[in-house]
Amino acid sequence: MKKITLLGATGSIGIQTLDVMREYNDKFQLYALAFGSNVQQAIPIIKEFSPKKVVVKDEKVKQELIGHIDHTKVLVGHEGLIEVSKDDETDILVNAVMGSVGLKATLHAIQQGKHIAIANKETLVTAGHLVMDEVKKHQVSFLPVDSEHSAIFQCLNGENKDQVNKIILTASGGSFRDKSRRELEGVTVTDALKHPNWSMGAKITVDSATMMNKGLEVIEAHWLFDVPYSQIDVVLHKESVIHSMVEFSDSCVIAQLGTPDMKVPIQYALTYPDRLDLPQTKKLNLVDIGQLNFNKMDFNRFPCLKMAFDAGREGGTMTTVLNAANEVCVDLFLNGKISFLAIESMIERALNQHKVIKTPDLETILEVDQQTRKLVQSYVD
Amino acid sequence: MKKITLLGATGSIGIQTLDVMREYNDKFQLYALAFGSNVQQAIPIIKEFSPKKVVVKDEKVKQELIGHIDHTKVLVGHEGLIEVSKDDETDILVNAVMGSVGLKATLHAIQQGKHIAIANKETLVTAGHLVMDEVKKHQVSFLPVDSEHSAIFQCLNGENKDQVNKIILTASGGSFRDKSRRELEGVTVTDALKHPNWSMGAKITVDSATMMNKGLEVIEAHWLFDVPYSQIDVVLHKESVIHSMVEFSDSCVIAQLGTPDMKVPIQYALTYPDRLDLPQTKKLNLVDIGQLNFNKMDFNRFPCLKMAFDAGREGGTMTTVLNAANEVCVDLFLNGKISFLAIESMIERALNQHKVIKTPDLETILEVDQQTRKLVQSYVD
Repeated sequence: MKKITLLGATGSIGIQTLDVMREYNDKFQLYALAFGSNVQQAIPIIKEFSPKKVVVKDEKVKQELIGHIDHTKVLVGHEGLIEVSKDDETDILVNAVMGSVGLKATLHAIQQGKHIAIANKETLVTAGHLVMDEVKKHQVSFLPVDSEHSAIFQCLNGENKDQVNKIILTASGGSFRDKSRRELEGVTVTDALKHPNWSMGAKITVDSATMMNKGLEVIEAHWLFDVPYSQIDVVLHKESVIHSMVEFSDSCVIAQLGTPDMKVPIQYALTYPDRLDLPQTKKLNLVDIGQLNFNKMDFNRFPCLKMAFDAGREGGTMTTVLNAANEVCVDLFLNGKISFLAIESMIERALNQHKVIKTPDLETILEVDQQTRKLVQSYVD
Repeated sequence: MKKITLLGATGSIGIQTLDVMREYNDKFQLYALAFGSNVQQAIPIIKEFSPKKVVVKDEKVKQELIGHIDHTKVLVGHEGLIEVSKDDETDILVNAVMGSVGLKATLHAIQQGKHIAIANKETLVTAGHLVMDEVKKHQVSFLPVDSEHSAIFQCLNGENKDQVNKIILTASGGSFRDKSRRELEGVTVTDALKHPNWSMGAKITVDSATMMNKGLEVIEAHWLFDVPYSQIDVVLHKESVIHSMVEFSDSCVIAQLGTPDMKVPIQYALTYPDRLDLPQTKKLNLVDIGQLNFNKMDFNRFPCLKMAFDAGREGGTMTTVLNAANEVCVDLFLNGKISFLAIESMIERALNQHKVIKTPDLETILEVDQQTRKLVQSYVD
């Protein structure tokens, strides 16, 4: 029985992680969970899974929650996250929070030798060098939960990492893949939220449309698989059936394919090197799909991807700026404050204004993150 | 330095094996080779690679060869094949002969703990139960050299075999894939030899056109990967870019892709679990290819595939009859003695006439093989 601490229990990945655990309650036990402030959604989860500890955003949320549950210790804020993440009872930490809030907790968990399932982009995008150093030092499993990195991880199974030529990430192209730059001028939030293949949260759906999502994945892949940016390719593959690929030195390409279901990479991260039966997951039927298409990635069409590669190559705090600026811009776009195309121009402006710090520590990263958010917000205030 | 004994040195796979060895003469040494009677082709190979021992078909070929070479012991026939295959100096036996001539030698090599690279269909199609028993007993590596099985082997790398749901072999459809049954009535040998994707020998090119090649591969996959026939699928994939796939219990599909170059599976079989750099092998470029297509396999259109599944399920000597009848029929077709469609009807007739022997020993297999050849030949005499 593996004891799991789940950060971000009321989010999309959190809920699907609970689905997997519910299906396999002989294998997994929810030891602790954390959520922000969605008390109404959290209560039935806590009642069903009876975790020993719950972490919430602040004292106010704690007071809201506390009358509804018994036998569960309620903790608060960063201190609470760190306590449950490094807890002796935790076997696996699933980091599925949004933003950088889980970063410190994840580092603490790694230092305590916990197995990590990572569904949070900031961890690697902003602190890849710190995190992977600790992962190597403490020799923990650090498994990606999103479909692309899980695919690459699977393609590397049993292989000699020195014989990797290239990592090939596939990109669906997002909601606007058939639109020209010109046609992007008038697009609305509603348009942006119609992803052709995956049903996901609003932020990541917009990131797919700008291709920033793939850019962040490129940076994550760089850290996760220890490959230089020159060995990471992105190819447009509108069906999203091939989740990603690896090319080896002998020219063989290994690919991982599947239907779009996040429960698949979730269970893989929880059970690697084994796999679970997932009878409710639709099986891939290539004959029904009939055709897979591949197109060249156009960096002029998708400048966010270019910015991500550039920021990744520059390294240091540059990727923190990229990520923080993007978060603020997407939020502004979703709230109708800026146009779709302003997302990229404002990120570019923030990157241009930043003087990179090459090997930042955690405090510096968090500081640059905050500064960038204020700066980008100031563009519209 | 691995010492290699190569059976079938002057055939297509043999020559390409020598290409790989030439490129990596710091890793491989040709200890012994065997060929049938193509002395003119063999002489430069022997001069270049200086094997310690050479095996030829018979005394006549030996006499032809002997004046041309020095310092090389020349052996003859089955006894010679067995001697070099189980030789203490041999590390890897590459069985790339046509027909069942290498079967005994391969069994001897396995019993002596040699690593086997197998490019010969008969070994598994006719004697899969005997061969795989010995492979398990002596715990040798038994690596497939053809692209489909090498692909599956790669897809299974690092995986738990108990979690395999399905093996999915891809089939290009061969030279006549766009023709109806009716249109097959008038096809010629020249038409049959135009394979759309791979440049191969005449026999295997005709086997691709009848889909018997895929049928034999299904039987090989059954033995090689220890999966029941109900868990082996064949899908039409005209580009032959995905060489084969494996579906796992969690619905993930792992695929191996590449350009058509037999040197890739050859080097893999020689160096597994490592891979060599193959700079001269064309890299796969999915953007240039643009599109991959998949179609349902039609057993009515390709009855040879159905016969292969049925013979495989029936087991015992049935697959020996299938293979021997097919060899004779293809030979008759290539020599203009029978029509293309007569290949299938004559194989069917031979299968229907045969009373299966369930767990035949090697002598029985070889006897049934000979009887079948005579029987099928008698249909046209």
